[in-house]
Amino acid sequence: MKKIGIGLDLGGTTMLATAVSEDGRILKQEIRETPAREKAKIILRSIVDLLRLVENWSLSENLEIVGIGLGLPGLVNFTTGVVELMPNFPKMRGFPIIDELKKYFDYKLFYENDASAALLGEYRFGAGKGVDDLICFTIGTGIGGAVLIDGKLLRGPEGFAGELGHITLDPDGPLCGCGNRGCLEALASSSAIVRRAKEIISEGKIKTLLSNYLEREEELNASIIAEEANKGDLLAQKVYEETGKWLGIAIGSLANIFNIYLFLIGGGVASAGDVLFKPMIDETFKRAMPGIREKIKIDRFKLGDNAGVIGASTLPFYAD
Amino acid sequence: MKKIGIGLDLGGTTMLATAVSEDGRILKQEIRETPAREKAKIILRSIVDLLRLVENWSLSENLEIVGIGLGLPGLVNFTTGVVELMPNFPKMRGFPIIDELKKYFDYKLFYENDASAALLGEYRFGAGKGVDDLICFTIGTGIGGAVLIDGKLLRGPEGFAGELGHITLDPDGPLCGCGNRGCLEALASSSAIVRRAKEIISEGKIKTLLSNYLEREEELNASIIAEEANKGDLLAQKVYEETGKWLGIAIGSLANIFNIYLFLIGGGVASAGDVLFKPMIDETFKRAMPGIREKIKIDRFKLGDNAGVIGASTLPFYAD
Repeated sequence: MKKIGIGLDLGGTTMLATAVSEDGRILKQEIRETPAREKAKIILRSIVDLLRLVENWSLSENLEIVGIGLGLPGLVNFTTGVVELMPNFPKMRGFPIIDELKKYFDYKLFYENDASAALLGEYRFGAGKGVDDLICFTIGTGIGGAVLIDGKLLRGPEGFAGELGHITLDPDGPLCGCGNRGCLEALASSSAIVRRAKEIISEGKIKTLLSNYLEREEELNASIIAEEANKGDLLAQKVYEETGKWLGIAIGSLANIFNIYLFLIGGGVASAGDVLFKPMIDETFKRAMPGIREKIKIDRFKLGDNAGVIGASTLPFYAD
Repeated sequence: MKKIGIGLDLGGTTMLATAVSEDGRILKQEIRETPAREKAKIILRSIVDLLRLVENWSLSENLEIVGIGLGLPGLVNFTTGVVELMPNFPKMRGFPIIDELKKYFDYKLFYENDASAALLGEYRFGAGKGVDDLICFTIGTGIGGAVLIDGKLLRGPEGFAGELGHITLDPDGPLCGCGNRGCLEALASSSAIVRRAKEIISEGKIKTLLSNYLEREEELNASIIAEEANKGDLLAQKVYEETGKWLGIAIGSLANIFNIYLFLIGGGVASAGDVLFKPMIDETFKRAMPGIREKIKIDRFKLGDNAGVIGASTLPFYAD
């Protein structure tokens, strides 16, 4: 009987469940909207339903389910399985999500922070294959981070390590969701990109096609800005240049802290391409120390948006 | 026969050699000036002489020397033992310091970055006893850093990890010795403290007793400024307040990155006391995430200036 792992990537807007083979191939995938603002019990119900779909399909295909792996956003206590903080899920705080799920599934259950799950996906099957020291960023509405040291995830005593989105880069900078000012997340997430574009537009010093979005009251998002930047729009390019610089400052500091050379960038913002990566790479070189900076490589996720769910689904294969 | 380790702490101004018992007590200590600007061979000669003094004393006392441990400043390649970068020792670059020392001593030889040696001293015999996850800063003319994760030093693939003095905190800030701008070291080392005091004095907005130092052309250093701050001098207090804030920003970010709660501060600057620690602790609380910040503790080294040499001297006792 062929073995598979079932996994879930719980996002703030959508949740993704898959059945994945031991060599990292997705055999079945289900997706649905996340009722993120609802009560914990309703979110749980939704997770159970989605996993059940994949479970039933797997059983009907005569596959052996070795376990379930979860990629969870925010801080989930690594020993108790209780949600400490999930910024996009206001009513999940204090919810014993792991114990609750165990009531519905009899398989072995594993979980990681969503960024850690994505890192493991890339490390095992993607752009990080064979590299035992690497750092991942997943950049969307927030910024997740994960660190691999000598082939092992950096967890910290309670599993809260790797909050790379909450490095302070600009002490008096914009307010972050965490309450601090000038975190990387407040400077380089997709929300920060939109905020910065609006700021530049309303300053009015640069006028380009992008400026019209606001006049026409059309919605602006990070992908549109990336598209315009790639078409040559100067305002949009300036926004991505600044975003890339902040990321480069963070990466330079992290390279000095960890002596790590491979940085992988995933999430929606990564698809902006060179308009983001060029300033990011240039800035990293300025910030990292001589002796380290020459060896740094910054790449995009190879598994794209599936890195997290592939990493989560294959957790059961790698359990001790 | 009682066992001892012999160790060296190589500083930019002085070098310290000791014989230390397995329980961390210094039995013999020798100190001399470091000829830091001289050729590598002359520095080596000086190191050999100092270690020889302690070796001879130990032999005369019938002690069993289990090995020699070195605390070395800057980047020394962990596999080759070659100096990659020692900012205060311009002519040491590329020098195979470990192989050279082996020509003079027949004992087992161990080495760590000086900040790592200090961390190990504090972890084994000082303020970090029993705490397996902690971070140390040694703040003098430069800022060294070291990270302990689950009882093990963070080294990175080449032993360069832990360069906590080179986290960028103020992207357009003062120039750092490493070539970057706004590193922690450029903002909170003793040299940064003096520079900042001089800046405030020459701005002339605050006039206190400290302002007279420049008029009288007396030399200003971080200890004098600390002394004045503790006597109530507002200008001096402002300098230490800023210094503490920068350290707090770095500590907050590091707490989020590592999920580490214990931070130990050593080096000359640590002796400033509350004028430094109060703003540092306050700022850390602002910068670290909720759930983490409540548990952070910031303490001074218990072994003081001997943390490094005790850590280095006892390396041979802990070798695999």
